[in-house]
Amino acid sequence: MHLRSKPWAAPWLAEHTDLVIPQDQATQLKGHWSQQFDQEQPIQVEIGSGKGQFIMEMALAHPEINYIGMEIQETAVAIAARKSFDRLGKLPNLRYLFGNGNGVETYFELGEIQKIYLNFSDPWPKTRHESRRLTYKSFLKSYEAVLPAGGEVEFKTDNRHLFEYSIVSFMDYGMRWQPEDFTLDLHADEAKVAGNIQTEYEEKFLALGQPIYKIKAHF
Amino acid sequence: MHLRSKPWAAPWLAEHTDLVIPQDQATQLKGHWSQQFDQEQPIQVEIGSGKGQFIMEMALAHPEINYIGMEIQETAVAIAARKSFDRLGKLPNLRYLFGNGNGVETYFELGEIQKIYLNFSDPWPKTRHESRRLTYKSFLKSYEAVLPAGGEVEFKTDNRHLFEYSIVSFMDYGMRWQPEDFTLDLHADEAKVAGNIQTEYEEKFLALGQPIYKIKAHF
Repeated sequence: MHLRSKPWAAPWLAEHTDLVIPQDQATQLKGHWSQQFDQEQPIQVEIGSGKGQFIMEMALAHPEINYIGMEIQETAVAIAARKSFDRLGKLPNLRYLFGNGNGVETYFELGEIQKIYLNFSDPWPKTRHESRRLTYKSFLKSYEAVLPAGGEVEFKTDNRHLFEYSIVSFMDYGMRWQPEDFTLDLHADEAKVAGNIQTEYEEKFLALGQPIYKIKAHF
Repeated sequence: MHLRSKPWAAPWLAEHTDLVIPQDQATQLKGHWSQQFDQEQPIQVEIGSGKGQFIMEMALAHPEINYIGMEIQETAVAIAARKSFDRLGKLPNLRYLFGNGNGVETYFELGEIQKIYLNFSDPWPKTRHESRRLTYKSFLKSYEAVLPAGGEVEFKTDNRHLFEYSIVSFMDYGMRWQPEDFTLDLHADEAKVAGNIQTEYEEKFLALGQPIYKIKAHF
């Protein structure tokens, strides 16, 4: 997803650094993220939160969990944060991190976050861009460095090639999953779609009749 | 697939035991299957060959390989064998084994066959029937006992649940595969569908617009 830049984004973000934490500030929060939330409770992170529908609705549906939407694109994170802020104010359990997903261990300590979500990540279809895919082994290594032992990565996509690739990448890295945490057609799968929160992309691809693939794999 | 029994099947099979080898005879061929073929060349086996379109067309397309279609249902194996016999005579590189896929190691020695095909196997959807699925761990153990080191199992199905299950079963058993040996929509996948030979089921499900899943996994 590439969004046209909005002139209001940078100034708005500069005024809301308590809601959307900028990269340089985020590195200093390593080991202290709980202080950013009203309650000390498990923290879950979406990497590439885009326009933010998923992470906002997760925060509303699960007040017992703290969420961080991490996004590298300024316009996207500004749209996401402003939308939730204008609608709901500063939610007690939702923050954004405006920064690079590469090297998530620069922001979090081992075990500081409980779970990672990847939703409709950029497929980077060319082989020479393999290392940019968020399920490439170097990213998995980063995720492992911040999750507790047995920690989970939950991944949804409509992109068949990326999913095929990711399954193999998870397996090769030594990650594991059960059949019940794995579906090749999420929305045809009554048992597995229960409680599912859709992203903007998911709504769109679903309307086109494309299957959504999902896996919860753990280290 | 369950076929209504045909009165001609048993007598026809009894007359063609050189083409369709019955179970008791097959156990005695263990270690000596090459003698059954005109040429000594790699042997590949389809387990559950049904009405036989796949194995017959494979035999025609690959004269450099010997094929065995293994089938537990008398009517199916009789239909398959008679169809190929009436059309083509006794092909030099195609035989049938009328017998039980459970315990393939009772028929073959370690390394005697080079590859196993599973096509549109019975999904056995109920959890209590898990051990009947041809990708259940006890079957994988049997396959490993007859294939050479690193030997391959090639599996196609339209059944999403069986495929999800099988992926995990292969992984848990320690089998491995590459992204290029794995597709969640075979017929939309130009690179992977090249040389594909369709089964009767595949033709049917393809016409219904259902994706065909395929994996080549190796020990």
